[in-house]
Amino acid sequence: MEFVPGPLLAKLDSPADLRKLDEKDLPEVCKELRQYIVDIVSVKGGHFGASLGVVELTVALHWAFNTPYDQLVWDVGHQAYGHKILTGRRDNFHTNRIYKGISGFPKRSESEYDTFGVGHSSTSISAALGMAVASRLKGENDRQHIAVIGDGAITGGVSFEGLNHAGIENSNLLVVLNDNCMSIDPNVGALKEYLTDITTSHAYNKVKDEVWNLLGKMSKFGANAQEVASKVENAFKSALLKQSNYFESLNFRYFGPIDGHDVRHVAKVMKDLQDIPGPKILHCVTTKGKGYKPAEQGNATKWHAPGLFDKDTGEIIKIKPKRPEPPKFQEVFGHTIVELAEKNEKIIGVTPAMPSGCSLNIMMKTMPDRAFDVAIAEQHAVTFSAGLATQGMIPFCNIYSTFMQRAYDQVIHDVALQNLHVIFCLDRGGLVGADGPTHHGAYDIAYMRCIPNMIVSAPMNEQELRNLMYTAQYKNNGPFSIRYPRGTGVMPEWRTSFKLVEIGKGRKIKVGEHVAVLTIGAIGNYAANAIRDLEVMGISAAHYDMRFIKPLDEELLHEVFKKYKRVITVEDGCLMGGFGSAIIEFMADNNYSANIQRLGIPDKYIEHGTQKELYKECGYFEEHIIETAKKLMAADSGKKIMVG
Amino acid sequence: MEFVPGPLLAKLDSPADLRKLDEKDLPEVCKELRQYIVDIVSVKGGHFGASLGVVELTVALHWAFNTPYDQLVWDVGHQAYGHKILTGRRDNFHTNRIYKGISGFPKRSESEYDTFGVGHSSTSISAALGMAVASRLKGENDRQHIAVIGDGAITGGVSFEGLNHAGIENSNLLVVLNDNCMSIDPNVGALKEYLTDITTSHAYNKVKDEVWNLLGKMSKFGANAQEVASKVENAFKSALLKQSNYFESLNFRYFGPIDGHDVRHVAKVMKDLQDIPGPKILHCVTTKGKGYKPAEQGNATKWHAPGLFDKDTGEIIKIKPKRPEPPKFQEVFGHTIVELAEKNEKIIGVTPAMPSGCSLNIMMKTMPDRAFDVAIAEQHAVTFSAGLATQGMIPFCNIYSTFMQRAYDQVIHDVALQNLHVIFCLDRGGLVGADGPTHHGAYDIAYMRCIPNMIVSAPMNEQELRNLMYTAQYKNNGPFSIRYPRGTGVMPEWRTSFKLVEIGKGRKIKVGEHVAVLTIGAIGNYAANAIRDLEVMGISAAHYDMRFIKPLDEELLHEVFKKYKRVITVEDGCLMGGFGSAIIEFMADNNYSANIQRLGIPDKYIEHGTQKELYKECGYFEEHIIETAKKLMAADSGKKIMVG
Repeated sequence: MEFVPGPLLAKLDSPADLRKLDEKDLPEVCKELRQYIVDIVSVKGGHFGASLGVVELTVALHWAFNTPYDQLVWDVGHQAYGHKILTGRRDNFHTNRIYKGISGFPKRSESEYDTFGVGHSSTSISAALGMAVASRLKGENDRQHIAVIGDGAITGGVSFEGLNHAGIENSNLLVVLNDNCMSIDPNVGALKEYLTDITTSHAYNKVKDEVWNLLGKMSKFGANAQEVASKVENAFKSALLKQSNYFESLNFRYFGPIDGHDVRHVAKVMKDLQDIPGPKILHCVTTKGKGYKPAEQGNATKWHAPGLFDKDTGEIIKIKPKRPEPPKFQEVFGHTIVELAEKNEKIIGVTPAMPSGCSLNIMMKTMPDRAFDVAIAEQHAVTFSAGLATQGMIPFCNIYSTFMQRAYDQVIHDVALQNLHVIFCLDRGGLVGADGPTHHGAYDIAYMRCIPNMIVSAPMNEQELRNLMYTAQYKNNGPFSIRYPRGTGVMPEWRTSFKLVEIGKGRKIKVGEHVAVLTIGAIGNYAANAIRDLEVMGISAAHYDMRFIKPLDEELLHEVFKKYKRVITVEDGCLMGGFGSAIIEFMADNNYSANIQRLGIPDKYIEHGTQKELYKECGYFEEHIIETAKKLMAADSGKKIMVG
Repeated sequence: MEFVPGPLLAKLDSPADLRKLDEKDLPEVCKELRQYIVDIVSVKGGHFGASLGVVELTVALHWAFNTPYDQLVWDVGHQAYGHKILTGRRDNFHTNRIYKGISGFPKRSESEYDTFGVGHSSTSISAALGMAVASRLKGENDRQHIAVIGDGAITGGVSFEGLNHAGIENSNLLVVLNDNCMSIDPNVGALKEYLTDITTSHAYNKVKDEVWNLLGKMSKFGANAQEVASKVENAFKSALLKQSNYFESLNFRYFGPIDGHDVRHVAKVMKDLQDIPGPKILHCVTTKGKGYKPAEQGNATKWHAPGLFDKDTGEIIKIKPKRPEPPKFQEVFGHTIVELAEKNEKIIGVTPAMPSGCSLNIMMKTMPDRAFDVAIAEQHAVTFSAGLATQGMIPFCNIYSTFMQRAYDQVIHDVALQNLHVIFCLDRGGLVGADGPTHHGAYDIAYMRCIPNMIVSAPMNEQELRNLMYTAQYKNNGPFSIRYPRGTGVMPEWRTSFKLVEIGKGRKIKVGEHVAVLTIGAIGNYAANAIRDLEVMGISAAHYDMRFIKPLDEELLHEVFKKYKRVITVEDGCLMGGFGSAIIEFMADNNYSANIQRLGIPDKYIEHGTQKELYKECGYFEEHIIETAKKLMAADSGKKIMVG
């Protein structure tokens, strides 16, 4: 399928080409750029609403600034499709998010226009400030540095830290606040309400305008009144300009709010701002999905990343399965927490801005008092949960594995050290697919298992997830983490009755003679397939679903290492310090020896692709398990192996 | 030595006793409490200035609120000495920070008045909000929740996240802002300047008062003017009250600033605030070290934790060593970065609010343009460093091991994923001593080594630290981490000339026959002592200082495992996933077997004490190495061991 850009866009091979255009041509560029995004995303998939919402900002930025000399940092970056298309990637944009294709996020190795790799939110101010300070030190005083950040991303604590520092650095830093009232889900929090306030002019702007007006009139009342008016005006200006604004209290000069879809106006303002030194913020109001009616008028969360759709009708394409399909692990979590919370009134749900992604939105609907979206604020989500737990509440704090990295200290210092009963549901553990290296949940097994008091578990299927959730809340076990992958499980009939799991007990799924395969989590289902195939080949493999990385099922492991001298561990997580390492620690501590092969994510960053493509690339899919078992068998006859 | 509290304080066994006193007695309680702190800390050591600064707040809080039913969370917590003394720990306060004594920080297991364990900063708002929401859900509408946070701690991103969420939760939450313009070092950042502004009345208060005055006068100018005045007043009130304050923009009701040392006024205000529902902030201005002249008037950083001092003269007691002493690793860092920066103009120093603790203050003095204190903002410190590195700068980002937990995502996502040349100096790696479990740098080896692209190193002594720092900046190696412990090294003559180290190469320090001891970092010096003792006992041990945890020196390890069947690993870090695990991963991957014993921090939280007391408790001090070597020797004859 070929994608044909509009006539103007077809000629724009770089921002330099764009800058040759007249200001009056910019609206047409926007129209064509928007259409090109619709054309491709509708049949290729990807993020959608966010990029449509910043079409005008994108065009204005590259037109007004001298990119890549001027440095543009996109926060989060899933809105940077227009930026990619304008910066030399128009013709291979159709490979977006596809294995070996271009990344769905700005990426330094992909283009000099991608000044900073992004994916997680709220980093742009700090990164751009670093660039701006570097330019200052190098004497490049004409160089501009722009961070484009959404009103959702700006709630992340690191953004505030960046603002707080930037306010005292005299650098060419412009923060463009892309205010669309949305994270992936509607944005929440006090700052969001404040932004809405000043945007809708109920306060700041109305006050500013009205009072200026009134002060004008006051001068009519004679000399005394004039003097008063002048004093009031000065006081007022001081209050309004220096103090009256969240951003100005952090020493940023605040401009706006302006209509972020009026490209000519935005472009002009951006030109003007280049003459104003020091930290400044431009508040632009935009609409997610702008310019594509179904997205603009429909459910913004749905249109964040809608999958494939008919671009003419706006109908999202759903392939109806022929037989009942297994649910997503996310859905199992979402329904199960409600079931549990109905019976246990202490249960609370907490998510940092991912209610639809993790399915806590189900609980938010049915039990709005007991389910909290705390905004993009992983650190707060964890410490808030700790606070709840001190009062006997049982929070299920659901955070994606990759985002939990951001709350690591809070997990160690606020929860585990105090042995508080917080249940961490680590969604999207393991390789996540098209989002790529910024989002892979590769490290959580390693970084969680070194934390004292922490129970670390991973269910192999839906029923196991339900039982682990049930077990975690059943009594106070201290901190309890449950990690599961992105996507579907294996059980169409998943709504099984709850069964208590013994903490630290694994499952022997299949006996075998020649080799033992130890798995953790849902990747075990592929291992089970491999083991069936091995049986046909005459290799009898036992399968142990360890279920817990910590505490390890030592009884089961003694059985394994007493019986088997060939062992394979399989995990959808990093090999360094991960599940396999835990197993060999057990071996070393108990003086066992065996020829053990660990399969998992190697010590490098893994690019994007489908999950299966990536499992294969990393060497822990079905065929690798088979291959490894065969190798271990072959080693008996020739190669020296470890035997105790 | 006995410590005698004043007559009033002697009768205060709990806050209930305090609440029986009349308001007019509170100043005397403050005086006695302050004296008691001076008496004990001057001869026992500990944090000092912060606790003196909050004596009045402490007394007022416990007097005005119904603790422990009302819940009081101290941020950071090193200022909570007065709180400890008033809440039943007066008579064993002299065991503060001593092995098996009471903790230097609030700790849930120690007292019901310690509602939340603290140590790291900026957690109090989130924790108290969790408690407040729990109370609301339980219908305990009379229950108050108070977070006491300094103007330093409030710069940490998680504080902002907590404020942003608290602003939309209708809960009984009072944030007491203890504004003393200090972290451990003088506080920095835009918010600090803002607080100074409103405190000194140059803007907010002056405006408020003056304008109110002026508006009063305006009514004299007749009906029209009155109408105008009334409109202006309304607009103005709306602007000032709703918009004009950082905290009010986050939907907090703001009160203050008030004098935090006027205990009767503070107590009264705190009583009054209990009738005001919803999130509110009370801004109290205090002085660190208040009431003890030398601290109040001297260098606040010095008096943060001055060590022992003569309470009458204010002279800090320094024991003069008889011979030249080795320097602290911190000093070596501080001087070395300046030496390197003098030769390499790309080098930048970055610290999040620890310039004196990590000794970057030396560079801040000599090269103020190139050394940055970015406030308590570890996440920002790392991403800011990443931004600098994109421009070819070479930032040395110095963060304590325990605080680096807070920037974990930024290390993975912003630095390592992009393979940026940022040098992480992980100060206070390993057990830190008296600060205890909140501050031990126990996990960094485990959590750093699972990150792709990351070089993970630890110098055994001062010369090695210098050489690793030199090597790290010499050429672009990508992210490079260097961890070293709190306290002194072993080389009085430490200012050696720089020598390039080959990345991933360890050192064979001593050959041996019977057993190999593999160490990482400064703990290797104790191992060297043990090995000398073993020699005398007839056990010949080889000593390898591995220097790099990643990449491992595989050549050296092949030598080790080919030659030795008895191996001991020693690390000042957690055993789960740590250095020893890296070694056994190598063994497993290369089919080696040996009887290997890993010594390090076990999988539990370690309390406070001197470093040596704790090494002993954890079983990796000299005697344990000796014991372990003997056991391995004995195992030959009886116990089955792993031999390949």
